Amino acid sequence: MKNFLLMLMLFVPVISAAAIDKVERWDVFEIELKGPETGNPFTDVWVRAIFSRGETQRAAEGFYDGEGIYRVRFMPEITGTWRYVTKSNVPALNDQKGEFTCVPATGDNHGPVRVAYTYHFVYADGTPYRPVGTTGYGWAQQPEEQQNLTLKTLSGSPFNKIRMMVLPHAPSGETISCYPFMGDPELKQWDFTRFNPEYFQHLERRISDLLDRGIIADLVLFHPYDRNVWGFDRMTADEKDLYLRYLIARLGVYRNVWWSLANEYDFLHWPEKEWDRLFQFIREHDFYEHPRSIHNGSKWYDHSKSWVTHASLQNYNLTGGKGFRERYGKPVIFDEICYEGSHMEPTLNLSAREMVYRFWQGTVNGCYVTHGEAIDQQFFRRGGVFHGESVKRIAFLRRILEDSPPKGLDPRAPNWMWWNVAAGQEGRYYLLYFGPHNTSQWQLPEGGLWQVAVIDPWEMTITQPETTFAGGTVVDLPGKPHMALRLRRIK
Amino acid sequence: MKNFLLMLMLFVPVISAAAIDKVERWDVFEIELKGPETGNPFTDVWVRAIFSRGETQRAAEGFYDGEGIYRVRFMPEITGTWRYVTKSNVPALNDQKGEFTCVPATGDNHGPVRVAYTYHFVYADGTPYRPVGTTGYGWAQQPEEQQNLTLKTLSGSPFNKIRMMVLPHAPSGETISCYPFMGDPELKQWDFTRFNPEYFQHLERRISDLLDRGIIADLVLFHPYDRNVWGFDRMTADEKDLYLRYLIARLGVYRNVWWSLANEYDFLHWPEKEWDRLFQFIREHDFYEHPRSIHNGSKWYDHSKSWVTHASLQNYNLTGGKGFRERYGKPVIFDEICYEGSHMEPTLNLSAREMVYRFWQGTVNGCYVTHGEAIDQQFFRRGGVFHGESVKRIAFLRRILEDSPPKGLDPRAPNWMWWNVAAGQEGRYYLLYFGPHNTSQWQLPEGGLWQVAVIDPWEMTITQPETTFAGGTVVDLPGKPHMALRLRRIK
Repeated sequence: MKNFLLMLMLFVPVISAAAIDKVERWDVFEIELKGPETGNPFTDVWVRAIFSRGETQRAAEGFYDGEGIYRVRFMPEITGTWRYVTKSNVPALNDQKGEFTCVPATGDNHGPVRVAYTYHFVYADGTPYRPVGTTGYGWAQQPEEQQNLTLKTLSGSPFNKIRMMVLPHAPSGETISCYPFMGDPELKQWDFTRFNPEYFQHLERRISDLLDRGIIADLVLFHPYDRNVWGFDRMTADEKDLYLRYLIARLGVYRNVWWSLANEYDFLHWPEKEWDRLFQFIREHDFYEHPRSIHNGSKWYDHSKSWVTHASLQNYNLTGGKGFRERYGKPVIFDEICYEGSHMEPTLNLSAREMVYRFWQGTVNGCYVTHGEAIDQQFFRRGGVFHGESVKRIAFLRRILEDSPPKGLDPRAPNWMWWNVAAGQEGRYYLLYFGPHNTSQWQLPEGGLWQVAVIDPWEMTITQPETTFAGGTVVDLPGKPHMALRLRRIK
Repeated sequence: MKNFLLMLMLFVPVISAAAIDKVERWDVFEIELKGPETGNPFTDVWVRAIFSRGETQRAAEGFYDGEGIYRVRFMPEITGTWRYVTKSNVPALNDQKGEFTCVPATGDNHGPVRVAYTYHFVYADGTPYRPVGTTGYGWAQQPEEQQNLTLKTLSGSPFNKIRMMVLPHAPSGETISCYPFMGDPELKQWDFTRFNPEYFQHLERRISDLLDRGIIADLVLFHPYDRNVWGFDRMTADEKDLYLRYLIARLGVYRNVWWSLANEYDFLHWPEKEWDRLFQFIREHDFYEHPRSIHNGSKWYDHSKSWVTHASLQNYNLTGGKGFRERYGKPVIFDEICYEGSHMEPTLNLSAREMVYRFWQGTVNGCYVTHGEAIDQQFFRRGGVFHGESVKRIAFLRRILEDSPPKGLDPRAPNWMWWNVAAGQEGRYYLLYFGPHNTSQWQLPEGGLWQVAVIDPWEMTITQPETTFAGGTVVDLPGKPHMALRLRRIK
């Protein structure tokens, strides 16, 4: 190693190649280089590294991290020895070489999440990933103490995904001390070609904290709530590209990152084609292929477009989930279904019961659902602690999901019914939720022997008789609304 | 009057021109003629009457009613003296002349119902008609005693519309004693060119009974539940036309008749074009322009087609109502939203609470909703009595509707909200239903003075403080789910 090639231990899981030349599969390998500080290092300088292992080659873009430090990050997806060489328009950053060994993943490292079986997700190692998300848009820009509280809350929660903004979010006029771009906060004038490394160092620390807890950071890249606040929504097309390149180089190496192009994208009033372009830009530059979607206000984006990996919906018609799956042929996540609370705003006062029922409706429609809470300090905005009554019931549902078939729950209309209250795997497993129906009896599918469990999603009880039942048997149910049923064929 | 021109008093409101030459506007005037009984009078003979009053002329088709009796019926829509002359291919029925006086309507006679204000209905005299329907598909083919019980039940109910089949309906294998066509019930062979007058005489008596009670007969002309029962669904195109002509001539004079082309039309698997054709046939032949629609199973008919007067939906997404109105630009009636009950079939075990909540959801989306009950003998199939818990709550809602603005409730998003829980007339009246939301406060629209009532749709209470509130005031609500609010500007 040459002396201007500095290697530093940053924070988990970024691995310094100097300290250790072994990197776990899907962890982050980083090259740190010292280069020019003059001019505009964000635009004047480019650096990338070509990583190769046998026939496989990947060109990872680097980024400037302030104080003359340039970094190139890489998430190896194949075990074995990787070699690299850097390329740059600056001699000091050019033609730097090295190697490291990618060793198998251990522990909870299952790799990044991919779409699988058309409507579902798995980790790269094949472990099922069943999104059970929550929302904390501005949690990472809150005071440090509050952020730590949020992390503690998430550790003990059922949630394995959180929707969060990359850019600041302060709908209630909060001030923040650190901005993503260099500029004048008073005058709301920003230089979108100069990032503030401190802001993004902090953000990636939080992404890493989430990774430690097995939680996906569903990163919202743009949002419409900045009008007349700071004006970060006023980037030109070139500035957006620069911003996306920076995020991809810097954050795209974290295996728990998803790209959500926007929250309520339509409220930004950008042309549809601009969103198409941004999607394609990310698809082109993010060779890790992190899941990509976009969240709507009143007008839905067309999620059938090839660059969208899954539908991310704000919608309250959870029973329509099966139809939305069919429309898009992709996984459907109801990423906003109102927030539990009693605020005056209609979106912010959903009853806890309805939050729980919507989770069940979405589930038996073969979809995924995202929680949000608007009580007291409003976790969905600021993080903190949960006060609501739905979280523990969502945890109860998640335990049931973890114990369901690995290939996911698909809407299944066994031949004795014509409309959808059931999801499962044909002839083997069904989870049914009857919603507002007084279902008092249910006929098991024909054939085999079945284990039957009556589930009360609100009371969190699972009543499972010792007896098993022959296929075709009519079993009795409580005959009251909001009950669920699990049928598992055991023979 | 010639001696072969017999005039008989049939039953209310068919008025015999012999007994009385005065007919109330929108009542039925009938000419009875004696003609041939040989051959096939249904197809060999045609008779019509040209009614004229000043410039206005109407050609009313007659029909054969058995035993050599031919009738031509007419519903006068303009007061004054009408003259008529008959035309026929049979001399005995041809060139018969007469006149009668159409006098103003009295009492509860408001005329037929028409679409008005794009999304609503009014009677011909301008009185608002707000459909609050129920379902009794086969009630008119039940034993006489049961039919009388049904009429008694309806008299004391909130319902002003009932969906009912023209053709027999016996999903549970009931037998009937009287068939609509001549033929062999054992062999299931029918002559679709020969109607059974007795069957239709009975049916029209029931329609008249409903008229006496102010109830619309939403006549379902075809249905898919006859497969392997009698085979009345096997008419050819020509036979369907003959059937429709017969119904229009015979029943189309009743001002409380609506045409519903089918129940779950898609389950008949006729080509879409055939339905288009039938719609156009009715539009062409029914010059009274009774409301026309069609009810779906899984696949919706395109209600935006010009011959459809209103959308008749089987759908359970009542909160989607506003969107359906916008899609079609017509009134939307949720004509099947599941049935209250606890039957094993999922459509037949809706909880009473949900039935009531769906009525409210539909209402605040500017739509109309139809009830159905599947308890015990299953009113929705056989009529009888109501056992459910929803009917009295629907009556409560109807009283609120009758006290609402005459031009109907349209979804209104006052500027303090962006999604629809409110319907009314801008700046004057709002009815809000918060569904599963814990709404604890609500801000009144700006300006004026408002009367505020908190409504509990299940407990059937209206809490209306003596105090009035200035526009813009924030009023307190119970903060629990399933509450409603009425705002009426009084100054």
